[in-house]
Amino acid sequence: MSVIPKINYFRISPAPVQGPLFRAKSAVQPISGISMLKIFAANGSIALASVILLEEVEADYELSVLDFSRNEQKEAAYQAVNPKGRVPALITESGILTETPAILLYVAQRFGSDSLVGAHDPFIFAKIQEFNSYLASTVHVAHAHRMRGTRWTDDPHALEALKQKIPESMTAVMRLIEDDFLKGPWVHGEAYTICDPYLFTICSWLESDGVDVATLPRLMAHYQSMLDRPATQAALKQIS
Amino acid sequence: MSVIPKINYFRISPAPVQGPLFRAKSAVQPISGISMLKIFAANGSIALASVILLEEVEADYELSVLDFSRNEQKEAAYQAVNPKGRVPALITESGILTETPAILLYVAQRFGSDSLVGAHDPFIFAKIQEFNSYLASTVHVAHAHRMRGTRWTDDPHALEALKQKIPESMTAVMRLIEDDFLKGPWVHGEAYTICDPYLFTICSWLESDGVDVATLPRLMAHYQSMLDRPATQAALKQIS
Repeated sequence: MSVIPKINYFRISPAPVQGPLFRAKSAVQPISGISMLKIFAANGSIALASVILLEEVEADYELSVLDFSRNEQKEAAYQAVNPKGRVPALITESGILTETPAILLYVAQRFGSDSLVGAHDPFIFAKIQEFNSYLASTVHVAHAHRMRGTRWTDDPHALEALKQKIPESMTAVMRLIEDDFLKGPWVHGEAYTICDPYLFTICSWLESDGVDVATLPRLMAHYQSMLDRPATQAALKQIS
Repeated sequence: MSVIPKINYFRISPAPVQGPLFRAKSAVQPISGISMLKIFAANGSIALASVILLEEVEADYELSVLDFSRNEQKEAAYQAVNPKGRVPALITESGILTETPAILLYVAQRFGSDSLVGAHDPFIFAKIQEFNSYLASTVHVAHAHRMRGTRWTDDPHALEALKQKIPESMTAVMRLIEDDFLKGPWVHGEAYTICDPYLFTICSWLESDGVDVATLPRLMAHYQSMLDRPATQAALKQIS
């Protein structure tokens, strides 16, 4: 299990990349300028999936946790990192990367084993991308209508109507995953892949979304298996 | 330029894969069991992006166009292909693949050049996935609130409220692409990638979405460049 890094809370500054962004994973490992990653996250956000994966592959990284209650993601300094005003955002030596499916792919391909992305088979590789794309464009979007409805309407009555359908719409998409997509024990069967921390993070929202998780036993077994992993535990000690 | 394949309209049948699904691209090319792709699409849908790419890479494929006005995507035969009831779905020898970002990646990696996906550089590869993930999870989703609002509410007043914000929300995301993401002439600069047919397809919806396209000259130049390509023209002769 990796040493749990100290949290470096986000400090607003005009230049997002300042000073040494990288640090050693453990005290015995010297700080090096070669490996340099910084991830911006927020509690309760999908960024947890990327932090779990960074722990899984034992990457060196610095974590900055934005405070969404103070709208730090809308401040100019963070807009310079990600003009979309969302997390996660990953700063690499090559540039800034956003969108969870892309960050998971990049981190796995750079630091992880082929099995994380199904690199041994182009079809499996595509199936893993298909699953993550479904999470991003349908499942996460369904959830977002509870707290982020103003992306699609400013009408108070409509915002309330969107919230009311969350239990139904989230149950429907999770039922499809439970019955049709989750092979078990991991999303794609015996191999843990970049789909697993992504699914786990969304499952952590289900009770708040009004989903009766007792009706989803296979998903809950997956959730528990994720919780048992040291990398998940290390990530959860830093952000929720 | 590839020979334009004859359209094979979707016929409802219990088994989605029956008989020879593959045919020669041209009369001089014999039908072969080795290359076997069938794509399910619908007019006015995001499936156009995948059909354009199939034409670009000169893949052998059969096209089935579903009639959404008759709700063919909800019928049992198609549910067996894609339980999500959406298009595109690509039938391959290895299995069925859905979700536009995954299909574009698979088709490009199997039939196309490395430059289509940025395979020469893991960071560029990830940036291409980032852009397509943004289109899938934010841009396409914003658009879907005009016609597919029942995914998120059944309240008639709320559905109308969602429609009313489409011009504003679609203009905002396209403005970000125009100003920050589109390098030109193609999305990622000099090389045409799998982002380009995807962006083009979404841009074909902008006028219906109430976006003033005259305020987006770089996007419109991209749109015209896409229209000038023989592969785009070949796809548009089959579906819109």
